[in-house]
Amino acid sequence: MKRFSALGLALATTISLITAPAQGQQPQTKQVGKTIAPRGDIGAVAPALEKYAQDRLFEDVWKRPDLSARDRSVVTLAALIARNQTAEMKYHVNLALDHGVKPAEISEIITHLAFYSGWGNAMSAVNVTKEVFTQRKIGANQLPPASEKLLPLDEAAETQRAARVEQDYGAVAPGVVQYTSDVLFRDLWLRPALASRDRSLVTVSALIASGQVAQIPYHLNKAMDNGMTKAQASEVLTHLAFYAGWPNVFSALPVAKSVFEKRPG
Amino acid sequence: MKRFSALGLALATTISLITAPAQGQQPQTKQVGKTIAPRGDIGAVAPALEKYAQDRLFEDVWKRPDLSARDRSVVTLAALIARNQTAEMKYHVNLALDHGVKPAEISEIITHLAFYSGWGNAMSAVNVTKEVFTQRKIGANQLPPASEKLLPLDEAAETQRAARVEQDYGAVAPGVVQYTSDVLFRDLWLRPALASRDRSLVTVSALIASGQVAQIPYHLNKAMDNGMTKAQASEVLTHLAFYAGWPNVFSALPVAKSVFEKRPG
Amino acid sequence: MKRFSALGLALATTISLITAPAQGQQPQTKQVGKTIAPRGDIGAVAPALEKYAQDRLFEDVWKRPDLSARDRSVVTLAALIARNQTAEMKYHVNLALDHGVKPAEISEIITHLAFYSGWGNAMSAVNVTKEVFTQRKIGANQLPPASEKLLPLDEAAETQRAARVEQDYGAVAPGVVQYTSDVLFRDLWLRPALASRDRSLVTVSALIASGQVAQIPYHLNKAMDNGMTKAQASEVLTHLAFYAGWPNVFSALPVAKSVFEKRPG
Repeated sequence: MKRFSALGLALATTISLITAPAQGQQPQTKQVGKTIAPRGDIGAVAPALEKYAQDRLFEDVWKRPDLSARDRSVVTLAALIARNQTAEMKYHVNLALDHGVKPAEISEIITHLAFYSGWGNAMSAVNVTKEVFTQRKIGANQLPPASEKLLPLDEAAETQRAARVEQDYGAVAPGVVQYTSDVLFRDLWLRPALASRDRSLVTVSALIASGQVAQIPYHLNKAMDNGMTKAQASEVLTHLAFYAGWPNVFSALPVAKSVFEKRPG
Repeated sequence: MKRFSALGLALATTISLITAPAQGQQPQTKQVGKTIAPRGDIGAVAPALEKYAQDRLFEDVWKRPDLSARDRSVVTLAALIARNQTAEMKYHVNLALDHGVKPAEISEIITHLAFYSGWGNAMSAVNVTKEVFTQRKIGANQLPPASEKLLPLDEAAETQRAARVEQDYGAVAPGVVQYTSDVLFRDLWLRPALASRDRSLVTVSALIASGQVAQIPYHLNKAMDNGMTKAQASEVLTHLAFYAGWPNVFSALPVAKSVFEKRPG
Repeated sequence: MKRFSALGLALATTISLITAPAQGQQPQTKQVGKTIAPRGDIGAVAPALEKYAQDRLFEDVWKRPDLSARDRSVVTLAALIARNQTAEMKYHVNLALDHGVKPAEISEIITHLAFYSGWGNAMSAVNVTKEVFTQRKIGANQLPPASEKLLPLDEAAETQRAARVEQDYGAVAPGVVQYTSDVLFRDLWLRPALASRDRSLVTVSALIASGQVAQIPYHLNKAMDNGMTKAQASEVLTHLAFYAGWPNVFSALPVAKSVFEKRPG
């Protein structure tokens, strides 16, 4: 019970049916469109928060159109990993799997965020996710291999990006410039187990959730180049207002506005 | 003992008398103006830090005029929740109660920060606070109801605020704009269990403590409209230099200066 | 085993020989230039991350010239404390000791970061470090005393700094201004158990790792005045790309570039 956090309970009870868990196991949730009354710890401290959780978050935000529950789970996971919020992570790894995010995709989200949120954040996420994978009997055969054939590179775009970064920072931090090319854009981003559009969704969500405003323009543009619609980006902001707090989203809004306005169509 | 952190020990021993705790319980603290020698873990790692804690933090900062111990507890709690620092939180929830912050106010602080620091931060605070409330036998009758008659709205000011945000971001993130009005300014901010001035104190403290510089001007002005004096705001900055680190405060200083200078009187 | 995190395992297995730990103890690591095959938890979730850890981080970044393993440990510790990432901290306190960082220096790093990262961050680091010190039988005789003869002050430079801050913020937050002089620059920075250059290394690393861009110019200049070379600063950025994430480093790059360009030679 202890592991099944207050947020988990409220979420499970509003959008899922909790099947009886075996002793000591994390309850498995199935999205069946059924609602049972919320209960748990929130009400013992903040009855208003419990009501907001049900009325505004789970019965409202999570069900808004323009961003699927699957994508909302990806956004939520990215935010939790970027903010190193392990307490809520176990529930949301389970929920992501229930929403159709594949184990291989979760594996790649963590690997991706090792570079975009910091190594330690990924390590904490590994620890939580390993527990969930073990409980759900998700084995190595469902994970992407350490090395596999990469997606094709847009050589022209990458050459242009690398030249710009080399010109700006080649003399300041040649190591950073080199790893950015070799490890990130010529390797990590091309790993096939997570679609480019989803890598962008993860990256943009992590940047907004951790207040990295200066890095949003490049990656929001890249996300839209990778197929994210303006409506989806807008809903990412709405979703993250709840999961990363209003201030992070209000600091991202002027930047998002500027990106939207400069794009054709 | 393990739960009673190093900071807790030093703080308790310098500004409080520790009454003998029952087995396994958090020691109850009472502010009695008595000082007993600090002890505990800090000295086993950093004797200098132990000395700074006593000489500079507990015997000095916490006793400065212009901001009451009660308000300093509110500021500290807001900073810990905004930074998701659960390790120190239990001690400071207890200290806040000892300083006269009501259980209903702590409940509302957590609910408020769900929106201003992120949902997961509030959930972590719920878990810690539930333990303290249980130990101190604080029950539902001391908590604000989920719904109650709201404080009167300043319709003119809110209409103006909403129009500006709609104009700026209505096309970028209509969901954010809508929830900002419906959930935040026409609901959360009007809940009567936490005074508007205290909501502002919590919001400004959380913004400074988490480096959300761009959001400080609006909320510092609102805080002063809600009755926070310049001297109090100045002491919030001083207090947070210790609890959120010098860099967060130095990044807030130019913004605070600009707000102060633009206000009449 | 549980305490010996995934990152710890991978790191230990690539750059260290693990000596058989006593039951329930943290394995002691010795840097012996030997490599044994990685194992542990990472591969059960993210085989690609395990490979990146070995190929790119431990066999590559940690061995780059221009910044010693000792300095990289100081940078890593500062980043972990600044980001309050306690899960990885125990391993890195041990590794830092193995890399020649003295217990007295770790003690001072924590004390220093109480002021530059926030009090709670230091308290969490105290808890982790106390465990390591106990296991390694590091006692009070290896720690710096709470008070000792301070290093000589550059009175002219400090007077100039204090005058500028007083002029800028004396009317906004006199408390902050006073503590900045009395506690930080006329006391903390002059404690002899951590060299000024190392205090600067710690401060700059913490600022970059926590996204405090606005505070970087002053402290990066001070670091170079204190003897940090441009090549070392460049490697701090490269190292932190991995430990604090690419976005924090890319936000620091324009500032570092500007500092480098404005300095003679």
